[in-house]
Amino acid sequence: MIYLDNSATTQPYKDVAEAYMKVATRYFGNPSSLHSLGMQAENLLIEARNRIADLLEVEAQEIIFTSGGTEGNSLAIKGTAYARSTHGKHVITSQVEHPSVLESFRQLEREGFEVTYLPVTEEGRVEPDDVSRALRPDTILVSLIHVNNEVGTIQPIEEIGKRLAGHPKVYYHVDHVQGITKVPLNVKASNVDLCTCSAHKFHGMKGTGFLYVRKGLQLSPLFQGGQQEGRIRAGTENVAGVVAMAKALRMTVEQQEQKLAKLVQQNRQVRDVLHQIEGVYVNSPEIDSAAPHIINFSVPGIKPEVLVQSLSEKEIYVSTKSACSSKLSAPSQILTAMGFGEDRASAGIRISLSFETTEVEIAALNKELQTVIPELLEVVKREV
Amino acid sequence: MIYLDNSATTQPYKDVAEAYMKVATRYFGNPSSLHSLGMQAENLLIEARNRIADLLEVEAQEIIFTSGGTEGNSLAIKGTAYARSTHGKHVITSQVEHPSVLESFRQLEREGFEVTYLPVTEEGRVEPDDVSRALRPDTILVSLIHVNNEVGTIQPIEEIGKRLAGHPKVYYHVDHVQGITKVPLNVKASNVDLCTCSAHKFHGMKGTGFLYVRKGLQLSPLFQGGQQEGRIRAGTENVAGVVAMAKALRMTVEQQEQKLAKLVQQNRQVRDVLHQIEGVYVNSPEIDSAAPHIINFSVPGIKPEVLVQSLSEKEIYVSTKSACSSKLSAPSQILTAMGFGEDRASAGIRISLSFETTEVEIAALNKELQTVIPELLEVVKREV
Repeated sequence: MIYLDNSATTQPYKDVAEAYMKVATRYFGNPSSLHSLGMQAENLLIEARNRIADLLEVEAQEIIFTSGGTEGNSLAIKGTAYARSTHGKHVITSQVEHPSVLESFRQLEREGFEVTYLPVTEEGRVEPDDVSRALRPDTILVSLIHVNNEVGTIQPIEEIGKRLAGHPKVYYHVDHVQGITKVPLNVKASNVDLCTCSAHKFHGMKGTGFLYVRKGLQLSPLFQGGQQEGRIRAGTENVAGVVAMAKALRMTVEQQEQKLAKLVQQNRQVRDVLHQIEGVYVNSPEIDSAAPHIINFSVPGIKPEVLVQSLSEKEIYVSTKSACSSKLSAPSQILTAMGFGEDRASAGIRISLSFETTEVEIAALNKELQTVIPELLEVVKREV
Repeated sequence: MIYLDNSATTQPYKDVAEAYMKVATRYFGNPSSLHSLGMQAENLLIEARNRIADLLEVEAQEIIFTSGGTEGNSLAIKGTAYARSTHGKHVITSQVEHPSVLESFRQLEREGFEVTYLPVTEEGRVEPDDVSRALRPDTILVSLIHVNNEVGTIQPIEEIGKRLAGHPKVYYHVDHVQGITKVPLNVKASNVDLCTCSAHKFHGMKGTGFLYVRKGLQLSPLFQGGQQEGRIRAGTENVAGVVAMAKALRMTVEQQEQKLAKLVQQNRQVRDVLHQIEGVYVNSPEIDSAAPHIINFSVPGIKPEVLVQSLSEKEIYVSTKSACSSKLSAPSQILTAMGFGEDRASAGIRISLSFETTEVEIAALNKELQTVIPELLEVVKREV
């Protein structure tokens, strides 16, 4: 099996899964319980929160555990909108966001908020000047994705953060789900107020994530109830999942320096092959300004599901656009926003690597791409 | 260790934890991915959904996976209120609900909904006639807990459901978190529209649960984004957690017949001992009309934290009120609603059994209660 759909989800590290198992079975107490089994669980939670906060260079109380990226994005966006609507009802985002962000904004629109969807360059990038121009006295939120989940474009988060520094009433949310451990981001230096992360994108377990919430922020909870998570997110904590997430984050961050260079090299190798195959268009921006783990390309004329299936039969797993919208047949909104026509925007294929991807796997992928794409194009030609 | 805080959380069954581990590490694909690893994950999800639906005697599409009880209650209550506010803004609940229900209603009150908090009898029971009387033309929701999480009172869910059958515009939500596998409830026969369950209360993993949503209901999602869960709950599914939950539910339901009788017997043994200790008041209603796994009692004069700690030192784990409010020093709202004075309402201790509780453990608990309570009362007497 050659798994190259790591932007959809990653395989949990063995040590991470074992840590989960140990906590889930041995330290199963409810952290809110007053007896020693509860206290043990609470201590594990405190340790995990401290570890994650240290890795992000923020304070422990600024880490709010969630069930994953969709919850984090929903909580950040709707939580800000509902808590701050008396200050204004204008919010800003871009045309190239993850469905969980876009659909949260659509919901706010239905409720009377006004949303500015910023356009992007042909590389999928938001222009910082466009953010500045879109700001109004009633703007309460700017929400941007750091690393685009389909094409890997990196947004100028720090530069935009500087523009927003003079607007303390505007909350700045970053969807860092695809970026974390792959493209460094210092939330403090970038003036970020809210930052969404999800564990299963960095070899943690599904169903766990966290939202960085800058100290002192007003946020309306989605779940009310117990006193957990500073009253921002009630519910019995998934202690084992949180401990596993902290471990996965530490393990991936420790490897960053060495593995990121390897990812860039592997990414280049795939692009070099794609550039040589007739009929293939690479949609991701140049590697120097994109995340190292994502390569998006189109072969107009070949339905992306067909190419995904052909590779799947060889046990090579890649995807069409984001997993969350893979079952919709519409053209990619992201490729469309980048200015590509329908033939290219509806044919996007995403290859996404991880720190575990090997040279041998990349060689096998490249060989298969060189065989299967010309074959499929030949079939199409004969059918026409 | 004698773990008697099973209403706070349970230890996952070994087979359940192993099922989790197997799926998490081997079938780790994203169910939304189109390749065969994604399809394997999706098939596991379908199987788990079918299994849970069969056990509940409902349709598979009526099971919505969540991150747990608090999310389920929040989604059911706020989801109904937001989706149905054009039909009316009056909602009904009781004074003895879990914090996740009560706080959701408090939030709705702040947003302009009108909430009727029904009183209860001295046994903690809602009178069906009170529900009928509270109904108004603008009522859109009745939300009740099936088995009370602190004292074990069983609400007349089916009887109230019959009263609501003539009011199809009123959605009927039941918080079944403490009831499932302990006190049978047929949601169809009881006319229940929405029913919240949480896996870690029946030996599944924390961070997983499900909400029964009757087919055709209008519900406003808390998380928007991907197409998952019939668009009611977006986000990458916690496949391993869901498979583990289905297994835990099957395992507990299969044991029900045999184990429930045993629980009643153990419950009686503990009550018999409590009744013999001077200064002890049992707060739970008679065992015939309460859940078999919960015994709540007070020793006015002894701070409940002190008694919990004394037992914890002997590795016997019980709790003060619900885990979700255990760190608040206020008297129990539930005991107060039942008409107990502050001395008794602020001294509540909950012993909660599971199918795994043994005779030997109950004997050890009883012996310890007979020793430690008189000792603590003696200390109090000397201090006065």
